[in-house]
Amino acid sequence: MENNTFNFIGTISGPWKVLQMNTLLGEGLEEIPYLRMEQSNLNSQSDDIWTLKGFTSNIRYAVKEEKEKLASVQEGLGRQQASLAALIPIRKNEIWWNLAQDERRKIFESDSHHTEIGLKYLPAIARKLFHSRDLGQPFDFLTWFEFAPEHKALFDELLSVLRNTEEWKYIDREIDIRLQRI
Amino acid sequence: MENNTFNFIGTISGPWKVLQMNTLLGEGLEEIPYLRMEQSNLNSQSDDIWTLKGFTSNIRYAVKEEKEKLASVQEGLGRQQASLAALIPIRKNEIWWNLAQDERRKIFESDSHHTEIGLKYLPAIARKLFHSRDLGQPFDFLTWFEFAPEHKALFDELLSVLRNTEEWKYIDREIDIRLQRI
Repeated sequence: MENNTFNFIGTISGPWKVLQMNTLLGEGLEEIPYLRMEQSNLNSQSDDIWTLKGFTSNIRYAVKEEKEKLASVQEGLGRQQASLAALIPIRKNEIWWNLAQDERRKIFESDSHHTEIGLKYLPAIARKLFHSRDLGQPFDFLTWFEFAPEHKALFDELLSVLRNTEEWKYIDREIDIRLQRI
Repeated sequence: MENNTFNFIGTISGPWKVLQMNTLLGEGLEEIPYLRMEQSNLNSQSDDIWTLKGFTSNIRYAVKEEKEKLASVQEGLGRQQASLAALIPIRKNEIWWNLAQDERRKIFESDSHHTEIGLKYLPAIARKLFHSRDLGQPFDFLTWFEFAPEHKALFDELLSVLRNTEEWKYIDREIDIRLQRI
């Protein structure tokens, strides 16, 4: 069986050094000096501070044309020049989760242009989405981004644009954790 | 944290007696005499034969009008007269999972009328869907049905109609387990 569930672990030493933790909405998370990401079947260690779990899955909203555009432009994680990263856990409110598929898709795409915005910042910003809500976790999604230092301003712009969309009105918890590969 | 992950456990004694196990597509499952369903945080027992895990989640395809119709007509599990049940684990093939949202929705609804078919059999047949694929499980979905003995023929008709849809061409493993509450 394939294990597509990963743990993001706040810890006292690890491959990613925390540069900044910023709580944008809702309750914060305990401050951590380092982070590691690993498959969820590995045992936790005594110096772990907190763990957030999420799984990769099929694409939920993108239609055929968008999915093909994404696949043709995006780059994978682990690029050597991409020494900066961000982990952004978010939670959406109950109003969002009670919407039907067409209502969520409308807010996500027609009103907020989520996929279109993301596409504009490819391939500079690599990104991977982990679903967390279905595991009974405190956040609904964990998004992991990787980029080179010269693209930091571009990444900040991407977040600023997304945070001003209609979709973001449904978000009630968001933490922005910036990291540097060591 | 809410635990919406459940275990379906094939075992040697339990609240549901297995009447029949029928492998329709792909590899079978070891025969079991009884089944129990419980929250996934409970410990397994020594007489458990196999365990299938799945979580309840938000609705993935239904649009607003369909979602409202479903909510107004469907009944919950555990009705006293509903002494028969079925657990139907299915897996869809890679072609399905590589489709975009609009392509899956088109096959699911426009071509196969999945929600519309299901609605016709409400409230007689109560049903709950558990997502399994994202947990790295051998099946993608576990569907649990409950109905009264006088609705058994109706339930068989529902399955027969669904199994003749376009959507079902993407299914490569399906097991039909019939149960009776004891």
